[in-house]
Formats: sequence, C-alpha cells, structure tokens
Amino acid sequence: MGKNLTTRAEDYSKWYNELVVKADLAENSGVRGCMVIKPYGYAIWEKMQAELDRMFKETGHENAYFPLFIPKSYFSKEASHVDGFAKECAVVTHYRLKNDEDGSIIVDPEAKLEEELIVRPTSETIIWDTYRKWIQSYRDLPIKVNQWANVVRWEMRTRLFLRTAEFLWQEGHTAHATKDEAIAEAEQMMRVYADFAEHFMALPVVRGTKTESERFAGALETYCIEALMQDGKALQAGTSHFLGQNFAKAFDVKFATKEGGQEHVWATSWGVSTRLMGALVMTHSDDNGLVLPPKLAPIQVVIVPIYKGEEQLDSISQVAKELKRELQLLGISVKFDDRDTHKPGWKFNEYELKGVPLRIAIGPRDLEKRTVELARRDTLTKETVSKDDIVSRVQDLLVEMQKSLFDKAKSFRDTHITEVETYDEFKDILENKTGFVSAFWDGTKETEERIKTETKATIRCIPLNVKEEEGVCVYSGKPAKMRVLFAKAY
Amino acid sequence: MGKNLTTRAEDYSKWYNELVVKADLAENSGVRGCMVIKPYGYAIWEKMQAELDRMFKETGHENAYFPLFIPKSYFSKEASHVDGFAKECAVVTHYRLKNDEDGSIIVDPEAKLEEELIVRPTSETIIWDTYRKWIQSYRDLPIKVNQWANVVRWEMRTRLFLRTAEFLWQEGHTAHATKDEAIAEAEQMMRVYADFAEHFMALPVVRGTKTESERFAGALETYCIEALMQDGKALQAGTSHFLGQNFAKAFDVKFATKEGGQEHVWATSWGVSTRLMGALVMTHSDDNGLVLPPKLAPIQVVIVPIYKGEEQLDSISQVAKELKRELQLLGISVKFDDRDTHKPGWKFNEYELKGVPLRIAIGPRDLEKRTVELARRDTLTKETVSKDDIVSRVQDLLVEMQKSLFDKAKSFRDTHITEVETYDEFKDILENKTGFVSAFWDGTKETEERIKTETKATIRCIPLNVKEEEGVCVYSGKPAKMRVLFAKAY
Repeated sequence: MGKNLTTRAEDYSKWYNELVVKADLAENSGVRGCMVIKPYGYAIWEKMQAELDRMFKETGHENAYFPLFIPKSYFSKEASHVDGFAKECAVVTHYRLKNDEDGSIIVDPEAKLEEELIVRPTSETIIWDTYRKWIQSYRDLPIKVNQWANVVRWEMRTRLFLRTAEFLWQEGHTAHATKDEAIAEAEQMMRVYADFAEHFMALPVVRGTKTESERFAGALETYCIEALMQDGKALQAGTSHFLGQNFAKAFDVKFATKEGGQEHVWATSWGVSTRLMGALVMTHSDDNGLVLPPKLAPIQVVIVPIYKGEEQLDSISQVAKELKRELQLLGISVKFDDRDTHKPGWKFNEYELKGVPLRIAIGPRDLEKRTVELARRDTLTKETVSKDDIVSRVQDLLVEMQKSLFDKAKSFRDTHITEVETYDEFKDILENKTGFVSAFWDGTKETEERIKTETKATIRCIPLNVKEEEGVCVYSGKPAKMRVLFAKAY
Repeated sequence: MGKNLTTRAEDYSKWYNELVVKADLAENSGVRGCMVIKPYGYAIWEKMQAELDRMFKETGHENAYFPLFIPKSYFSKEASHVDGFAKECAVVTHYRLKNDEDGSIIVDPEAKLEEELIVRPTSETIIWDTYRKWIQSYRDLPIKVNQWANVVRWEMRTRLFLRTAEFLWQEGHTAHATKDEAIAEAEQMMRVYADFAEHFMALPVVRGTKTESERFAGALETYCIEALMQDGKALQAGTSHFLGQNFAKAFDVKFATKEGGQEHVWATSWGVSTRLMGALVMTHSDDNGLVLPPKLAPIQVVIVPIYKGEEQLDSISQVAKELKRELQLLGISVKFDDRDTHKPGWKFNEYELKGVPLRIAIGPRDLEKRTVELARRDTLTKETVSKDDIVSRVQDLLVEMQKSLFDKAKSFRDTHITEVETYDEFKDILENKTGFVSAFWDGTKETEERIKTETKATIRCIPLNVKEEEGVCVYSGKPAKMRVLFAKAY
C-alpha cells in the first residue's frame, strides 16, 4: 500500500521504530535519549491521562506538584533506593553560563552549587521530606496525592516510548496510619491500572507481584501488571509499591496515634508512564500501521470525499458535514478531510497508518444511492451502509472494535502462556514459541539469577491468583510451591 | 476571627506569603527556590489549565512535548536569547552518582557529559531545532503547537508563585509562512490571555506591547497583559512574542514557497505560568483569607451542619445531601463537611481562609423553618434563604460574585491609572498613590533606564489603544508622541 513500513515478520523491532516515527507519534531529539512527543502521539497520551486522572480522583486522590530537583543528600537517606537510582541520574552542578574570553559560551566555574541536585528519577525522597511537615497526627492521614510529571533516568540504550532518558508519568504517593491500609491502597492502584489497561487500552494484563530482586528500590512489595507484545516479549505496564515504613523512617515521619503513641507512617507509591504508548502500539498495530482502540483514538472517524471538481465536492461536503455534526453530538470525534492537496488514495493510506478506527468515503455514486462506504481499520474490511443507518452503525462498530481488539490480544496472550515441566522445554518455548512460560521455581534468588543469565528470561510476576501446589523447580529440581511467569521482557 | 493572618495594611508582602501557605496553596521545599504546590493550590491551577487548554484548542493549537534538556550549543545560536537566559540556568554536567570510599554518595567524576545540558528556561531553541525537521514546504505550515511543562530559571530572590526557580507553565510555539500571519497569531494569543484573565480570573488587564528593553530575549515585538495588584504594584500576567525570523535563521529553518522560492519561517511564542496563581491571590483576597472567583474555585459551595448529637446530624445530613446532589447536577462543585473532629466555627474560619465562594449552614432551627443560612465570601454577608429558593439563589450568586469581583478589581485598577505631566507628579504618584502612571515618554532607552534607576518604575506597556498625540517627555522634556504606562512591578 505504499507505506514503506518494514513488516513485523521481517523485523519486529525495526517495524516498531519506523511506525512510531511514520505515524507521527514521536521522534528522537537532538538530546541523547530524549524524545519529542509529536502532537498526534501526545493526543493519545492526553486521552490516557484524562481517564487515569478521573480514576485516581474517583478513588480519592488529589494532584499536587513537587520539585524537579532533589538534593543529593536526600538520596542517601534510604539505602536501597540510592542503590537503585544513583547509577543513572542527571546531576545539576552549576547555575550559570558565561561568555568565555573567545566569545564562546561556557559553564561559569564560579557558579557551582554547594550541594549537587539530582533531576528526579522518581520523587519518594523529596515527597517524604515534605510529608514530614504535613503529618503530625492520625487526623492528618491518609494523604493520597498524585503528580503528573517528567522524570529522568540516564538509560544508555534508549527506544522511543519504551525506554527514554526523560519520560512523562504520574506518580502516586500515599501515607497511611496502618500497614493494612497501605497494602490495600497499593493493591487498589494495581487494580485501577489493570482496569485502565483492559478497558481503555484493550490490553489484557496479568496481575501479580514481583520477586524480591525485581522489586522497586525501597519497596517491601511491588504489585505489577504484565502484558504480552505481539513478538512474544513481555512488558511491565504499571507498578504499585507497598513501601512499608522505609521512607517514613529515612525521613523521620511519625504521627501521634489515636491512643497517644508515636508511630512511623506507612507508605505506597505507584506509577505508569509514556511507556504505555509503546505497549499500545506493539499490542494492536499491524503491517499497515497503527491500530488504535476507539476509546483512545484522537480521531475516531475520518470522512474522505471522493470527487471531481468543485461542484461534486460541494454536494459531498454538505452530506459529510451533516454526518460529522450528528456523530459529534454523540461524543464521537470526527475529522472531515476535504484538503484538495492530497488524493483520496493518499488519505486512505495516511489514516490507515495513523490507526483511525473508522473511515467513511463518500463519492458521487453514494450521493445518488444515499449510501456511504465504511471501512474498518482493524480488519481492513469495507461495507456499504445506507445514510439512514450510518450513525448507529458507527456507534455499534466503535464498541465492537474496542471489544474485538481486546479479545484478539487476550486470545494471543492466553495461547502464549505455556506450562513447562523441564528446563529443556523452558528454553525451547522461550526460543521458539516465545511468550510467558509458567514454571515451578524454588523461590531462591540464585535460581532466578542463573535462569536470567542463561536465557535472558526474568520472572515477570507471581500471578495474584496463583495456587499453592507441590512441584519441582524447573531449574534446580528442588521442591517448589508454585508456578511463576517467566519471559523475556522489554 | 483567629486566622492569625497579618493584615494587608500591616505588611502586604507578609500577608501574601502567609496567606499562600495558610490557605494550603503552596510552600517552600527543601530545594532552594523551588516550591511544593499543595493539592488545594494545584486544584486551582488545574482549573486554569483546563480553560486555557480549551481556548488553545479552539484556536487551532495542538499539544506536544519537547525535551527538558537543551544542549549548551543550541543556546549560543541566537545571540540575544543566550544573553537573556545564560545568567540564570541550571546546568547538568554529570550523569551518575557513586559510593565514595568512605561510603558517602558523590558525583562520579568519570561520568561527565561531553556537552553540558541546560534545564530549559524556555524552549525556543530545542523546538526550532525540531521544526527544521518538520518544515520543508509551505504545505507544512502553519505549525501551531503548545506544551505544558516545567521550566527552570535560577532566580536569586524567590517568592511563592511570583518568582520561583522552577515553575509550571505553557509555552506555545508557532511557525508561519508570512510575517503578517505570525503577527496575527501573536496578537490573537494576547487576546486569548486577556479573555482568560478577565472572564475566569476576574482580573482586569491592560493589553499592550513592551518597549525594546523589556522585550523577550529574541523577540521583535512582545505583546503583554498587565494587571494591577491591591498594593498598587503591577504584575505582568502573560506575554506573546512575535519572533520574526530570528530563530528560523539561527536554526536554519526554511520552506519552499508556493512560488518555488526558499524563505525563512516566521515565528511566535507565548506563555503564562503558575505566576497567575500569585496574581489571583493578590487581586481579590482580603484580611480574612483567599477570595476566589467562582469559575476557578475548586469548591464553590460548602455545606456545614450545625448540630448537637447524632440524631440532629442525621436529619441535617439528609437535607444537606439532597441539596448537594441538586447543586452538583447543575455542575456546581459542593463539599458537605460533616466531620465531627472540628466545630462549625472552626470550619467557617477554614473555608473563609480558603476562599470558598458560598457557605451554607444548616442547623436544627433551619430544619423547622425549612431555611438555610447562606454566607457570601467576598462581602462576608449572610442571608436566610428558604429551602425552595436556595438552588436558584446559589446559581445567581455565583454569577453575581464572578462579575462583582471583576468590577471591584477594575474599579480599583481604573482609579489607579494616573495621568501626570511633570516628573515631580510622577514620583509623587509612585510614592503615595501608587498604581500605573500614564506619562509622555520620549521613546529613548536612556530615559527609560534613568527613570527605572531613580524610581524603580518600569514601562509596563505601550497600551494597544494608545492615541498618538503631541506631548513633552515627563523626564527629558523632549518631544514625545504618546503616553505609556509606568509602574513598580512584581
């Protein structure tokens, strides 16, 4: 179709990179590892943000904003946290440039900061330093705050959306009087993320917990949602952490209990990022371009006129504009593309590439017959619909496509969870069939580490609904209590 | 009323600082010059964002996102731009921390960046470096993009919202084929800002242009909206810049014209920031706390029950919850504060401090008489309203208060624009009456500079509607063509 897109079969990774750029989602910038999110890509992110923000507020959270910079000393206060983030962070050391003698611009050596500032890779430390001022008594709890922000992690190998030095995200940080309440909060937010992924992104996810070595730096428990991409690799789509009292202790945050005692506060944090954009693209799209679930598509319906000459365009426009208005009244986003600079075939291509769920074409014969041509992006099928039925047909199809994309992804995911009993089987599945491998694990870090070294597969999660059963570890042969999900991952 | 707030008459500046903290809008953080925007303050900012974003989209703009970091070399490309921002910028020089031998955390000297990165103080340079890739032909124009982002300017003396090292803002960056179109865009965005200030913030503004020395670094013309605070000082509330071809030339951005030539692209940029929060507070609030225009108040109506014992509370709650639901159906945001941890008087105080426009109190006698007590925050007046009339009364009052706040601020502003003929008068007004001084100016930088040095007053703007007339410069006695507005400013 002239899109010049590498196919998934040829090179999945190249297909993804090309698609993100060609569909105008994002591109690399002149700054190493930092991307530019283009308007079309940002419009999808805005739709995600709006839904998530609504869900956060419905579960009692408020938004706030904390500083971009974190004094270096704050980092040192929680030992495992600094270990997790120190190796890849951007450090501000100076606060002024000046003209050098030769006229070039240099960093002014006299404008050195007394204490270096870290560009936040995550905000636990600056936020818990603030919470100390906010929390005195049980009456001040819980605090349920979220922020939408940019963060920086100095990744060496970056890929648009999936792994970038700077990315956009939201990070929730809550403070509670009891351990149980904090755990319930962390679990609730995992469910919120799962609901969002499944109902809006049409992305089926496995809910689970991480093993100790895969946990967030500073967490006692990390809940996660794990998705499977079309190439059989897993992608962690969101995490929610029960932080225990680690940050409260590091930042000395205590509260007066109802009973008159003093206790450290219990914490959670949870986040999803622009990485979800990568998951969205890799789950549904095909060799013709993006496929977007209707609920997140910036344009849900595009109307393209097929005409020769001004007069035909006028008559078609009249019909198109009326249809556009009717659909918009139902809350459907519609674009009528009457540009005369591009031919219909070019436009068809363009909107396929950009994943617009439904395309309506109206030509002179449609006018005569009072019909339109309706094309569906996911199946690439076309049908002729009478003008009287088109509005309800569009409504129905948008609902159907949302469901159908989820079902297709879920069926792919479900057929790519393979139970294995032996390490040979394990390696064979990873190599050939790909996907999640469900295997008994002896529960030790050593086994986890060796499997990772030998196969590049990590334990993606211990599924929430796992059943305890007697088994034998696929690697060590030692007794094991449950199956966990391994996979190669993004 | 026990708010312990310094009065405006005692110390306006102290009143402002205390109010911002006590009303839970923002507070200083552990990072020099960086603030924490607290949930209540952020909720107001979110309302501002939502309206502005809607207005930007209605005028054909799309959102996107560009990198936080700008390579140092980009800055050097536009000479006046680097002069304007180099002296106060945060510079990232390293990308890793490590454990020192003594166990402390230090910046890893081996992880030094080849080229230093500037934390964006504004994004013209990184954006025009990107636009070079986006623009080849007149068909690619115009580009009308906005981004919501954080920026950093290393200010030495900071004040919550008004001047902070990091602040939140939006920055629009547009690219056009012609000079006229770019000027029209810059003017349009000034009008959008003025509309927003007046219709949502209830903040009357003077629309005008800046003198050359007050222009944005890199602009050929800066349009601005200027407001007047209650202490008679001016505040620049938003700016929109016509950048000519300066950035297109610096970043080599040309386009093929319809006629087949090659020309540099014409540019604008425009922004408003969390500084507007400061303007909002300083324009309407009083010695009892915040006064918020209804359109931006996170809580528009609060209902407080006055009761003794569970039984009374139950009956009152029933009425309150029904009323709350009725108001919410009309799109009014309502809080029913039935906490038993605080007394009604404490709650009254709290919601006055936080500027909730309307307060409804319901006690046992109200139940008997089928009435409620309605209190208005701006005038601090109370009235008894029958239950049957309360919904329509609330609706009317919210509209009336929005208008009344604007009228009051406008009347203050209008009586604080004083035309003067002599320099003595000029200084007298600045010293005693304060406000804007309208005076003839000879149009030279020298005069502008001397007046600034001698009186601390700057030319806030050349009003858009200024009439050309023959006059004599208030300072130099030389011939002058028009009156401009001087003031001391935030």
